[in-house]
Amino acid sequence: MASVDVPVALLGYGTVGAAVHRLLEESADEIERATGHRLRVTHALVRDTAKERGFAPDASVVTDDLDGILRDDSIQVVAEVMGGVEPAGDYVLRLLRAGRPVVTANKQLVARHGAELFEAAAAGGVQLRFEASVCAAIPVIKVLRESLIVTNVHQVLGIVNGTTNFILSAMEKGRSYGDALAEAQRLGFAEADPTEDVAGLDAAAKTAILATVAFGSRVPIDWVGVEGIEHVTLDHVAAAHALGMHVKLIGRASLVGDRVDVRVGPAFVDGHHPLAAVEGAFNAVMLQGDAIREITLEGPGAGGIETASAVVADMVSIVGTTGTGFLQNDPVWRSLERLPPGDLASPFYLRLEVEDRAGVLARIAQELAAEEVSVAQLVQQPSDGHAVLHIVTHEASAGRVAGALQAIRALPEARGEASAMPVISGRGVAELGWA
Amino acid sequence: MASVDVPVALLGYGTVGAAVHRLLEESADEIERATGHRLRVTHALVRDTAKERGFAPDASVVTDDLDGILRDDSIQVVAEVMGGVEPAGDYVLRLLRAGRPVVTANKQLVARHGAELFEAAAAGGVQLRFEASVCAAIPVIKVLRESLIVTNVHQVLGIVNGTTNFILSAMEKGRSYGDALAEAQRLGFAEADPTEDVAGLDAAAKTAILATVAFGSRVPIDWVGVEGIEHVTLDHVAAAHALGMHVKLIGRASLVGDRVDVRVGPAFVDGHHPLAAVEGAFNAVMLQGDAIREITLEGPGAGGIETASAVVADMVSIVGTTGTGFLQNDPVWRSLERLPPGDLASPFYLRLEVEDRAGVLARIAQELAAEEVSVAQLVQQPSDGHAVLHIVTHEASAGRVAGALQAIRALPEARGEASAMPVISGRGVAELGWA
Repeated sequence: MASVDVPVALLGYGTVGAAVHRLLEESADEIERATGHRLRVTHALVRDTAKERGFAPDASVVTDDLDGILRDDSIQVVAEVMGGVEPAGDYVLRLLRAGRPVVTANKQLVARHGAELFEAAAAGGVQLRFEASVCAAIPVIKVLRESLIVTNVHQVLGIVNGTTNFILSAMEKGRSYGDALAEAQRLGFAEADPTEDVAGLDAAAKTAILATVAFGSRVPIDWVGVEGIEHVTLDHVAAAHALGMHVKLIGRASLVGDRVDVRVGPAFVDGHHPLAAVEGAFNAVMLQGDAIREITLEGPGAGGIETASAVVADMVSIVGTTGTGFLQNDPVWRSLERLPPGDLASPFYLRLEVEDRAGVLARIAQELAAEEVSVAQLVQQPSDGHAVLHIVTHEASAGRVAGALQAIRALPEARGEASAMPVISGRGVAELGWA
Repeated sequence: MASVDVPVALLGYGTVGAAVHRLLEESADEIERATGHRLRVTHALVRDTAKERGFAPDASVVTDDLDGILRDDSIQVVAEVMGGVEPAGDYVLRLLRAGRPVVTANKQLVARHGAELFEAAAAGGVQLRFEASVCAAIPVIKVLRESLIVTNVHQVLGIVNGTTNFILSAMEKGRSYGDALAEAQRLGFAEADPTEDVAGLDAAAKTAILATVAFGSRVPIDWVGVEGIEHVTLDHVAAAHALGMHVKLIGRASLVGDRVDVRVGPAFVDGHHPLAAVEGAFNAVMLQGDAIREITLEGPGAGGIETASAVVADMVSIVGTTGTGFLQNDPVWRSLERLPPGDLASPFYLRLEVEDRAGVLARIAQELAAEEVSVAQLVQQPSDGHAVLHIVTHEASAGRVAGALQAIRALPEARGEASAMPVISGRGVAELGWA
């Protein structure tokens, strides 16, 4: 096949944009071997064309004029690597409507405006790909859409935020939450304002995208129940260790019948579960489906060159499949309802502080039984004149567990905090009724 | 896009063939959404058309006539799921030459006859895909070819045989090799004649395919240095445990400069390495590259429905990319040489049995130093009147380590076995100079 020269454009030229440009130049031969095409950056849209840049494109390439890109029919793919919801969203919409295929690395944009963007892509008759929006170079979107096409994925479990995983890993080595966060900030894993990460908002956007693709049904970001790691203590981490588990911030999307449940929050993960071994700033996503049982993908979930690698792979996939019917459509093809958040069932870890006297255990057991929550493991420890109970339950609905906790907090014997986290068991997860 | 009816054929109708048929029927809607095409099995080639089958195709579909498939121009993909090198290889060659795209699940065929098959595919102008030939449903071939196209993968580390991983996992719980093998056979994880698995031959074929795709250079199966797990003892497993490691059968393909080293053998894997956590009959492959650092894919590496899932994904990918230039070519584009097997460098675990008397340690240290093998960790234990030395070396070439072992075995103080296994360190593998 004769080589075809393919002009491409970049929106944004920061760390990721420069890395995309470099990878396209350095790997032009590899790309040509796979597709018969040579991708060449002809436009790089920036706000300030005069700014000095490390890996600087030719002056002829740098532009601050979106209209030039919109008008140039020769451009065959545009990569949006500028970040932020606006004006990126407006630019992408206009490009798609003008018939330009787009690749985006922008999770908030895809999670918040996916419906509108895919509508524009359909109207323009072009592809919109978004691998880099979730876990950088880990190719989970491509695997879900192309490799697991016939496996009916019914649950996705992920460690999709490296900052919080780094902090929780550091807490396992005995650091306090505050110290671990400070270290993450010092090493560049956490922002000066870490809210987006530690409150679970970054993970929520990624989990909403994963749920949407896995289940083929739009999951709005406000369906995602979100809890961060701010209230995880060294006591939780120690209790998990005693149980052979690890505390992880887990994004979980479950298909229950024809309803979906999507949530992000700290969980106790069994030491034999593949996600338990994911350490430091790494990410991992487990996909559970009928034909595949479970497939786990693990790797660095952030980074300029890693993100750029995924952007380029999407650009190449677009160039390589243009003119066919393959994956040019919105991944969404049905409208599932949201499962009421209290209905999702799981085993739970409960940590209760109570007065250390006769009859207290019986009272707590009564409250649990009243909500049909049954106990699988119980450890009672003395602590400063009162008692701490560590309980692992059998499978119970989140709502029933919350009800039992509320009743237990209202007991006259209650002291201090009463908290609950879901438990993610080891291999044979299906046995414990997740899904 | 209007739906297009696509006739497809199966070669073989055993467990995998029947599962492919069932998945194509049950997931016809999903496939149509992704590609605009409905795949319909029109031919299923079997040896005995009269045989009773569990998931039986229509009598009109079953055939024992390959020529009918060769002549039928309407057939757009053929899936080879019959197994065995011949006659499968002959059939696939004839189909490719006749212009029929082929998907194969046959690792020995791809590992042994890849060059000839891809030549025929090029001559016929059609695609040959082989995802299911390595680790069943784990989409490592697609990820290497489509997602990691620009990352220059320079090392592949895999647990690619579930039988041996099951046996080694059981040995960690204290079972002898013989007992663990018997249990694997009882559970259907191992064949009555387990040689193919336990001697590393199955892993060698898969690792040769992975190396070929990862490095874009044909790796003949006889380049693969192979050692099985027959000589792994509970002593090795216990020593690994004491060091915070696990004994695993590792397939490893390394690009060293412009030469390749491919080998399969037992290794000590650090407890923090992602492959250490892969338990039981699961498989996992770690891909290390410039842009991605490392990405690990884990899942079930065998099974009828899992293999069928990968076959169907390949069929769908062919239908979805026909008419484009995307991945229709042989993944091989260069001819790298084989690295002399002794040249590959790695840290090693050495287990030496020696007389327990003054001066022995000095003698051994001299022999190691003579081969420039330096010691990172050393533990000496008494054992039945002699001493066992456990040594973890710094990085050393395999040839130098073999030379030192030979010299040590020749010492008058040597007793019993002297064995070596490479050590695969935890995260930050690159620091230890692999590749």
